Amino acid sequence: MKFTIATIPGDGIGPEVIQETIKVLETVAAIGGYTFSYPLLLAGGAALDATGHPLPEETLQTSQEADAVLLGAVGGPKWDHLEGEYRPERALLGLRKSLGLFANLRPAVLFQPLKDACPLHPQIAAKGIDVMVVRELTGGLYFGKQERLQDETGGWYAYDTMQYHESEIRRIARVALELAKGRSGKVTSVDKANILESSRLWRKTVMEEAAAYPTISLDHMYVDNASMQLVKSPGQFDVILTENMFGDILSDEAGMITGSIGMLPSASLREDKGGMYEPVHGSAPDIAGQNKANPLATILSAAMMLRISFGLEAEAMLMESAVEHVLNQGLRTGDIYSDGCQLTGTREMGAAVVAAV
Amino acid sequence: MKFTIATIPGDGIGPEVIQETIKVLETVAAIGGYTFSYPLLLAGGAALDATGHPLPEETLQTSQEADAVLLGAVGGPKWDHLEGEYRPERALLGLRKSLGLFANLRPAVLFQPLKDACPLHPQIAAKGIDVMVVRELTGGLYFGKQERLQDETGGWYAYDTMQYHESEIRRIARVALELAKGRSGKVTSVDKANILESSRLWRKTVMEEAAAYPTISLDHMYVDNASMQLVKSPGQFDVILTENMFGDILSDEAGMITGSIGMLPSASLREDKGGMYEPVHGSAPDIAGQNKANPLATILSAAMMLRISFGLEAEAMLMESAVEHVLNQGLRTGDIYSDGCQLTGTREMGAAVVAAV
Ligand SMILES: CC(C)[C@H](C(=O)O)[C@@H](O)C(=O)O
Ligand SMILES: CC(C)[C@H](C(=O)O)[C@@H](O)C(=O)O
Repeated sequence: MKFTIATIPGDGIGPEVIQETIKVLETVAAIGGYTFSYPLLLAGGAALDATGHPLPEETLQTSQEADAVLLGAVGGPKWDHLEGEYRPERALLGLRKSLGLFANLRPAVLFQPLKDACPLHPQIAAKGIDVMVVRELTGGLYFGKQERLQDETGGWYAYDTMQYHESEIRRIARVALELAKGRSGKVTSVDKANILESSRLWRKTVMEEAAAYPTISLDHMYVDNASMQLVKSPGQFDVILTENMFGDILSDEAGMITGSIGMLPSASLREDKGGMYEPVHGSAPDIAGQNKANPLATILSAAMMLRISFGLEAEAMLMESAVEHVLNQGLRTGDIYSDGCQLTGTREMGAAVVAAV
Repeated sequence: MKFTIATIPGDGIGPEVIQETIKVLETVAAIGGYTFSYPLLLAGGAALDATGHPLPEETLQTSQEADAVLLGAVGGPKWDHLEGEYRPERALLGLRKSLGLFANLRPAVLFQPLKDACPLHPQIAAKGIDVMVVRELTGGLYFGKQERLQDETGGWYAYDTMQYHESEIRRIARVALELAKGRSGKVTSVDKANILESSRLWRKTVMEEAAAYPTISLDHMYVDNASMQLVKSPGQFDVILTENMFGDILSDEAGMITGSIGMLPSASLREDKGGMYEPVHGSAPDIAGQNKANPLATILSAAMMLRISFGLEAEAMLMESAVEHVLNQGLRTGDIYSDGCQLTGTREMGAAVVAAV
């Protein structure tokens, strides 16, 4: 079986973590007798430097035709002064919208060997954290109408629009409900239905979709309360379902409470099995090219790709156990280092995962 | 000197915490030779039961004419089924808009005697938490145009509008900048300027206003990052300045990381010295009428009222030290109780603060 992986190393530490991930993927492919190809594509700052645009047409087209997209990270201070369509993160937004990646999955897991890095009180951390944030990714304030205008006296005002169609809500609700089936069976839908009309439609529609899932328990929480509960008792959450902007805030908060952002993968999916996979962390330009970056989040993202886009569950689990294994061995890159562990470089960490596979 | 305090006990534990606060205010008034009057007004569920509307005209008018408004809490399960303009929280929104309460101040402080309740890791808590969230309260998604509509095929969609005029941004920025002068001199303006047009106007306008405050250091942070940083290192923040919806989420998160929501006051201010003061906690219907509620957040809110609306700084500090004193004595209501302390009822806590004053 052959799979084409549109590969976007991007900026900063992106190329390094992608390189190690490819090594791991090649090992898995050899074992299973699969063929993965990795057409290398430009996006973000790297694309700006080479072509003058953060998301070249070729990147878009190859990504569209591939079985999945694997992305490192985009952005950095070199391109921070750019505006509008030239900002590197426009590449992300462009890929999300053009590929129809409406479902963003962000698992936030407290890895037991890393629990000392958890910023929460040890009594809370002891209860474990295993939250899957399902964030709507192509609607709401991110893609609604926006304008900057002047009133009669010349004063400026600006607006953004948080808009949702019930069909957008239904499809993301189904993703969350399906995911909950294979987990603890609980979905917490987060909104601000006491204030927002789009949230009221959100809540009503999610309830309608949930009716077809009698084994799933659904509850609703206001976004302000959710931001508190994630700190107070993250153990209460299984799947969190929410709209784009709230999901941006809450998925980062959920990631941070694990204390190991360098470990967290993500998937952005479309209606078919296709999707884009990338680590949650950024391009970390300060440590780029120094063999210091943690490749594990990208490796775990690739594992999600095998599971979701390629249907290779056993291979995905193999990669995930390999990551667990190197953590149990005490190997640590700088971002997750703690006393008594062995400080490891990007390449050495990649090699250790390859060996564990 | 005479001051009129429009007093809205509200629902649940509201009446109890207001009662104790009035006792403390009366003690302070007697010492300083002031006269406070407390016209009692209905809002929320109590008003719905009595008049059929959550915000009666009389409440609005008396509040408008008073020197300040003191509110307990509104809402509860009894009124949860109500919709639209009959929801109890509409009383809050109505008061905010009609009184022009555009500036919401939410201090989140880790009280040293309560540091064991902090949900963050002791190493993070040890660095202290003293954040002042300045939330814009009468603009953005809360008051923008919203609609639910049907498309040609009968499918529903809904939208809300996040709109800001530069004049709204300027006045809230000035509140934050002025506050920072009396604190550590640092303002972190939180937005999502990489995505939202209203955030780009927000950032530009805040920078313009800050130019008149050369001693204040201003930085900008994306809202997703801010939600992470509050958990990772809250000690980095002094004043957080942000728009209505982001402020709703971040002020609750900032409150929760202190571990003592029952202790946190808030002020909602208009352009003149007037304002509304209320505890951050809700109406807690489960413990209402049982002499279990913590009156300290309301007492601290009243202290803010003396400071900000009445200009009585010494009296405000007197109340705040009295609260500190009872905490150091080991008195605790149930919500902040920990081993070795003395479990105290609402009335006993009020009496202890009166004695300490
Ligand atoms: C870079 C930015 C546009 C992006 C977002 O807000 O979606 C990022 O924060 C994320 O969560 O993937
Ligand atoms: C009750 C609700 C409308 C309100 C808000 O969202 O502003 C509350 O959460 C608050 O923060 O005061």
